[in-house]
Amino acid sequence: MAASAPSSSGGEPDPNSTNLRPPGTRFLQKNNNLEEKISSFKERSSKDLLDNSDRDSRFRRTETDFSNLFARDLLPAKNGEEPTMQFLLEVVDILTNYVRKTFDRSTKVLDFHHPHQLLEGMEGFNLELSDQPESLEQILVDCRDTLKYGVRTGHPRFFNQLSTGLDIIGLAGEWLTSTANTNMFTYEIAPVFVLMEQLTLKKMREIIGWPDGEGDGIFSPGGAISNMYSVMTARYKFFPDVKTKGMTAAHRLVLFTSEHSHYSIKKASAALGFGTENLILLSTDERGRVIPADLEAKVIDAKARGCVPMFVNATAGSTVYGAFDPIHEIADICEKYNMWLHVDGAWGGGLLMSRKHRHKLSGVERANSVTWNPHKMMGVPLQCSAILVRERGVLSGCNSMCAGYLFQPDKQYDVSYDTGDKAIQCGRHVDIFKFWLMWKAKGTIGFEHHIDKCLDLSHYLYTKIRDREGYQMVFEGEPQHTNVCFWYLPPGIRDMPDGQERRDRLHKVAPKIKALMMESGTTMVGYQPQGDKVNFFRMVISNPAATRSDIDFLTDEIERLGHDL
Amino acid sequence: MAASAPSSSGGEPDPNSTNLRPPGTRFLQKNNNLEEKISSFKERSSKDLLDNSDRDSRFRRTETDFSNLFARDLLPAKNGEEPTMQFLLEVVDILTNYVRKTFDRSTKVLDFHHPHQLLEGMEGFNLELSDQPESLEQILVDCRDTLKYGVRTGHPRFFNQLSTGLDIIGLAGEWLTSTANTNMFTYEIAPVFVLMEQLTLKKMREIIGWPDGEGDGIFSPGGAISNMYSVMTARYKFFPDVKTKGMTAAHRLVLFTSEHSHYSIKKASAALGFGTENLILLSTDERGRVIPADLEAKVIDAKARGCVPMFVNATAGSTVYGAFDPIHEIADICEKYNMWLHVDGAWGGGLLMSRKHRHKLSGVERANSVTWNPHKMMGVPLQCSAILVRERGVLSGCNSMCAGYLFQPDKQYDVSYDTGDKAIQCGRHVDIFKFWLMWKAKGTIGFEHHIDKCLDLSHYLYTKIRDREGYQMVFEGEPQHTNVCFWYLPPGIRDMPDGQERRDRLHKVAPKIKALMMESGTTMVGYQPQGDKVNFFRMVISNPAATRSDIDFLTDEIERLGHDL
Repeated sequence: MAASAPSSSGGEPDPNSTNLRPPGTRFLQKNNNLEEKISSFKERSSKDLLDNSDRDSRFRRTETDFSNLFARDLLPAKNGEEPTMQFLLEVVDILTNYVRKTFDRSTKVLDFHHPHQLLEGMEGFNLELSDQPESLEQILVDCRDTLKYGVRTGHPRFFNQLSTGLDIIGLAGEWLTSTANTNMFTYEIAPVFVLMEQLTLKKMREIIGWPDGEGDGIFSPGGAISNMYSVMTARYKFFPDVKTKGMTAAHRLVLFTSEHSHYSIKKASAALGFGTENLILLSTDERGRVIPADLEAKVIDAKARGCVPMFVNATAGSTVYGAFDPIHEIADICEKYNMWLHVDGAWGGGLLMSRKHRHKLSGVERANSVTWNPHKMMGVPLQCSAILVRERGVLSGCNSMCAGYLFQPDKQYDVSYDTGDKAIQCGRHVDIFKFWLMWKAKGTIGFEHHIDKCLDLSHYLYTKIRDREGYQMVFEGEPQHTNVCFWYLPPGIRDMPDGQERRDRLHKVAPKIKALMMESGTTMVGYQPQGDKVNFFRMVISNPAATRSDIDFLTDEIERLGHDL
Repeated sequence: MAASAPSSSGGEPDPNSTNLRPPGTRFLQKNNNLEEKISSFKERSSKDLLDNSDRDSRFRRTETDFSNLFARDLLPAKNGEEPTMQFLLEVVDILTNYVRKTFDRSTKVLDFHHPHQLLEGMEGFNLELSDQPESLEQILVDCRDTLKYGVRTGHPRFFNQLSTGLDIIGLAGEWLTSTANTNMFTYEIAPVFVLMEQLTLKKMREIIGWPDGEGDGIFSPGGAISNMYSVMTARYKFFPDVKTKGMTAAHRLVLFTSEHSHYSIKKASAALGFGTENLILLSTDERGRVIPADLEAKVIDAKARGCVPMFVNATAGSTVYGAFDPIHEIADICEKYNMWLHVDGAWGGGLLMSRKHRHKLSGVERANSVTWNPHKMMGVPLQCSAILVRERGVLSGCNSMCAGYLFQPDKQYDVSYDTGDKAIQCGRHVDIFKFWLMWKAKGTIGFEHHIDKCLDLSHYLYTKIRDREGYQMVFEGEPQHTNVCFWYLPPGIRDMPDGQERRDRLHKVAPKIKALMMESGTTMVGYQPQGDKVNFFRMVISNPAATRSDIDFLTDEIERLGHDL
């Protein structure tokens, strides 16, 4: 057992305990000294209660020796308030320093180490867990080391993922969310957050273009789960018996999605019992956009084979090319053949906030459901993904199980606000607050500005490298999203004749440059092959900190590291 | 557009930009004044890079007028560092005040308002989103109000959910996680967190009792998803073709779970295409534990009907009664009939950390998979749930889709650490760090102490009310977990003869007391009906801040509020 148990663990009433009761009520408490406590309580002015704004109680950081302090000395331990405040403020100091440096171009994006190096222990950074507690001093060192050996995803030169950047308002929102530490399943324990979710989802549906923002939706743990919701909801709409009888109640259902679409549609087909073979991949044009005629042909073919076409996913902003499928033409086909139209706007949904770019999602208002990840193009911290459904009631019909211990019908408030039963989760993390707070702080126009700026930057990159020596675009024409896909050809490859040998060498260029980038820690950008195309770079811009100078830095760095390959 | 655009949005290179490059390398940057920047960079000592510990750079809070500051004035805006630091420190002040008050028994647990009241706006707290930005001063007010109208789930008298308490180390861990703002899918962008997850899962498997901690696992967004993983993994183990061919490749599969088990097993049956009718509910004894003979009888019956029994869920710590199913006896039956044994230890798994109580999960080492939520009994902040699988390879075989843009095989490091493809998610929130940090800070013995203390407290409550006038236990005998289930009988009911009228009146008592509790804001505890039993209180203790005096307070409060019902 722990060497020193917290004082509050004993059987005695906590001497610090003050009992909150409405004055004048009958009082049954049996503890000693209660009369005094009541008096002292009554003397407090009522504004003290639940008032977070009392400025005189601010804690100041003082030099604290954490080497003899342990977790057990923090609240709720007796006299734990002072060490708790000092410890939290020390952590905040580490974090704010990290934030400052994240935006400082003189710091590296990462300090790369191989897994075995970190596992062996870096200068005393020991990842192993043990039976005995570490001092708070060591815990603070662990916090610093964790950040030190991590990747600065908010750095202006981190372009590796669709989600980049570190939004300060969003960060503050997430800190508050952690502190509130509650759960979205009922209004009872998350009244404010539940309402924020409801209002924000309505706003998103209005922006999609559904009349009066009607419909339904929920925030889920990422775009893959949001896409899974869309397939489940479609199945429930057309074949509600599947919920009780299983997939035997609806044989041979088939789904359609682009060969360029996100792999989560395939994961959903596997998980939900359709089978990946019953997910039919649609051909795309050279820019990665679904060819509607191919969809119709494959629907007709599937019907001829006795299958039941049920669901079409149109991608709004594909992962690699940033392509937007033509939603109107796909919607026409969905209406004709009575199929559910889902728009996966995990990446491209953010463009709906821009008057200049939202036309790329034209027709989204005809979708039955939409995935939209504010944690990607809108810069909201991870995780923040919404599934939005046009028809009210389908989502809850699909998922509700009416657990008596959570969703009691005989509560004192309007239980239609207990939205948790719509989810496939039970407990659900509060993903809404940071997004709501960012929307408050930026306004709709702030998001619009951010999106327009990122697309301007990608336009800058595209026009810069389009005709530059040593670069070759993966597809012709201006990219639709911020994705700019290109090969860098080192001088030694440029004059080689087309053929397998050149392809083989080119295939190795991007991984090699990426490895050198990570080792020098200066910047990060993604690469991958696609279809018959060998490894190429996929540049994406969602980071509000990025500027033209960072784009220039990236191309310079590619050329520096790749020149002699 | 926003009235004042951030300075960094223009096409000009950011004048604050400093370019990080290894000294002596060829330099291609075309920007002006670069020579100066390089010199200034070289002058910095190398320890500045990635060093979070420089103490001289601490920011101090100063009185700042936030009324004329907006989100666009924060980093990455030019000169944004000072307002960013002041804003974050102001937020931290709000949060640390909230933390202090959370542990202060003179504050309310909640300040209840109905949905329509909050929607109408409370003293200027306006939830609606608008096109124009709000000042940072208003954002700070919004933060205070959000906490003010929420529920203090860490309050020593909040007993409403299985997850209660506010662990300071866990909180610090979650703040750091938000600041790092990365994603678990690859080692590339989450090297430290990926390794922490791996080591922690191994430790958990060792504690379960699997040889050498071998096996697999992943942290998922809650116990419901972890349970869903178990069903998917079992299906893949026995019928791998379902992944590609769908449920038609494996007809008439049936699953078994206790009638007292968590509703997520039912949600998984519906979602994954089994159908809820193919989830067979097992009878329990009076204490809510599965009767093994009933399982065997139902397996035999299912087989006789041509069904294929595939999966049994044994609950270790049921949601309402806290019951532990007899795992060994269930495991015998699973072995006999070749079924997958899953143990849902979402709630009870934490008891594995206690030498005194872990015998309640005896046999768990025979399970094929285990759900274990550190965010429940172990006090880790939400969300933190693990699915652990005994056989290596099944989880990734089940879910992997090998997306080329994320899981490139030609990276420079050992890509077996890119664990994201095991998940049904793509992006995955970092749930591990807070848990890892708590384990470091408390040691295994710290968790043991916490669990033993909570069970001691529930023993105190049980012995207190077992024979107390006005109380009736829902089931006989000492509870296995911290769940204490009871009816409170107001004096007016005590002498009524058994019958429908008494039942009807008793059914209304718990909801009424709960409503009064919430309106007075003094404490919160859950209630529900179960089977043919009318509404009763379910007291659970997982909050490290709770003491005997809080238990006394709860019963006093029930008696005070319920006396005249």
